[in-house]
Amino acid sequence: MSSSFLEQYVKRITGLDGEAAQAAKAHIGNLTVPPGALGKLEALAVQLAGITGKIKPSFEKREVIIMAADHGVCAEGVSAFPQEVTPQMIYNFLSGGAAVNVLARQADAQVVCVDIGVNSDISHPELISRKIRFGTANMAKGPAMTREEAEMSIETGIRLVEEAVQRGVNIFVTGEMGIGNTTPSAAVMCAMTHTEPRVATGRGTGLDDERLKHKISVIEKALKLNRPDVSDPIDVLAKVGGLEIGGLTGVILGAAANRCPVVIDGFISSAAALLARAIAPESAEFMVASHASHEQGHRMLLQALDLRPGLDLDMRIGEGTGGVLALTLVDAACRIVSEMATFESAGISGSGEPAQP
Amino acid sequence: MSSSFLEQYVKRITGLDGEAAQAAKAHIGNLTVPPGALGKLEALAVQLAGITGKIKPSFEKREVIIMAADHGVCAEGVSAFPQEVTPQMIYNFLSGGAAVNVLARQADAQVVCVDIGVNSDISHPELISRKIRFGTANMAKGPAMTREEAEMSIETGIRLVEEAVQRGVNIFVTGEMGIGNTTPSAAVMCAMTHTEPRVATGRGTGLDDERLKHKISVIEKALKLNRPDVSDPIDVLAKVGGLEIGGLTGVILGAAANRCPVVIDGFISSAAALLARAIAPESAEFMVASHASHEQGHRMLLQALDLRPGLDLDMRIGEGTGGVLALTLVDAACRIVSEMATFESAGISGSGEPAQP
Repeated sequence: MSSSFLEQYVKRITGLDGEAAQAAKAHIGNLTVPPGALGKLEALAVQLAGITGKIKPSFEKREVIIMAADHGVCAEGVSAFPQEVTPQMIYNFLSGGAAVNVLARQADAQVVCVDIGVNSDISHPELISRKIRFGTANMAKGPAMTREEAEMSIETGIRLVEEAVQRGVNIFVTGEMGIGNTTPSAAVMCAMTHTEPRVATGRGTGLDDERLKHKISVIEKALKLNRPDVSDPIDVLAKVGGLEIGGLTGVILGAAANRCPVVIDGFISSAAALLARAIAPESAEFMVASHASHEQGHRMLLQALDLRPGLDLDMRIGEGTGGVLALTLVDAACRIVSEMATFESAGISGSGEPAQP
Repeated sequence: MSSSFLEQYVKRITGLDGEAAQAAKAHIGNLTVPPGALGKLEALAVQLAGITGKIKPSFEKREVIIMAADHGVCAEGVSAFPQEVTPQMIYNFLSGGAAVNVLARQADAQVVCVDIGVNSDISHPELISRKIRFGTANMAKGPAMTREEAEMSIETGIRLVEEAVQRGVNIFVTGEMGIGNTTPSAAVMCAMTHTEPRVATGRGTGLDDERLKHKISVIEKALKLNRPDVSDPIDVLAKVGGLEIGGLTGVILGAAANRCPVVIDGFISSAAALLARAIAPESAEFMVASHASHEQGHRMLLQALDLRPGLDLDMRIGEGTGGVLALTLVDAACRIVSEMATFESAGISGSGEPAQP
């Protein structure tokens, strides 16, 4: 692994196919709906055409990649749950009982679970073991990881996407598990978008007022101590990020390089999206918005990413749950362009000629 | 048809099953997610339990009922499309080419199209003909219809639901078609919620500023001329409503009487929901929110109904499109309660005991 791999790799990422996007827009303009009436579904259909180069794409083989890792900063008491829940939830994913499994079955998506840095030994025939280290170090006391580890986490995400594309997967959903991971995600957001910790930091899985205040002070301390170079996303990831955040950054870059849409789940995934965009600006064009979560800061983060989600469910669970739910909207956009009648085929009058003006 | 039918009928509508709702809430509290993290999906699951009396309901037989009618007020030039589009779109629904057909196929819902008051002769083997009159009268010049016709439109919706329930349908989606129908819907909203026409009135399928101003003045005129009795929903429907609005009011009441959830689509459906709630307050507990549309006034109308939609797609198309899309959320809520592991079954630690506080 070397930074030169990443530098070389991201050269594969180029922008959307403008011609296909324009053709999709023109086709939608002929469908039997008033102009623009399909709202975000229309924008999504145009984006999907630009991503794939096809006016009528479809995405049959879909995968949610759950990157799991632990966080040294948990020693500061930033989460409502103990760290042992990370491996417990991994076994829950692997036995199909978590929310993301249930919603992935509904969306006909495969769940892939990756140990990229869990702080315990875990093994299971279905688990993909790519452990880089046993959790990050406590960022309130020093960098979360080395620059090399940060790069390795991104490369791990890229390689998993490359393998999945070989299996025929053509759409990805970001997912994650890691007790305490809203803390590094908020820190990454603060560094990358110049936001104050008190604005970016939320209650995660359920902190009370006092512990929220404490979490904010931990993030302030970590940023002050580590001074991440905001012009260098790898430095930000290494100093105040997390291994699953790096892994998802890689998933996003890998999807963009393979011209596959990647559905961005919640707050943690959105922090990874910020890093991916900073590494390869055109990767942003391959990101599909999913939901606005209940976590404070997420809406602002979505705005920074220029993502306009179609789901507004007040969820704050992560895992990829909002992402797999949003596959319905991807399917809806695809079906609309491929199945709807045009004004001409249906023999319908256009607007602009009211019966009695 | 007589008002005594309606009076008798609505006595069947009683509130939610509180015991089942509480049991569902307790069950969800044991699922492997942080408390409350499922947001609106959790609230929906609890509501569906209260509606059906089952903690783990499922809704396999689903129907979107499209009520189609015309509006005399179109003579005032309140729509961007000519009235002939109403029957043209009906044929489009019947041949499966409209947006609602595409999205209903995705959601495995049956589309039922009802002529409750189209201003032309139409026939098709799949069309349900229940025409009450050839479009309403121009409400800018007098009442849209008689009180008897208004009552008949509601009864028509009820009877269609009763027939559908006989066929095993157990969830309904409201849909509609009627060029010009955002005008009576806004008028109903104004009357029922004491809102100014300039606040409630939107661009419908695409009016420019000048024609929007004209539409507002038409609604002001209709309200002033007809003076609907705001304490009498049937009077409001008769004077400034529409036949499809009445039909959908009946669909909602019928669903509630049969303890079936009814997914409320967009602005026109929400106006019908206001009337249904005024006729039978407990019917509101059976309404499932779908989407916040782009039509001005819809968000305020949803607030008045205490409906918190999970979809935010900037759509302004009606037909039942947002409603059938929301069936995914109904399915997600059902799957979560029936398929997810509990903390105990998955052997996962609870919150409140951070590893190192």
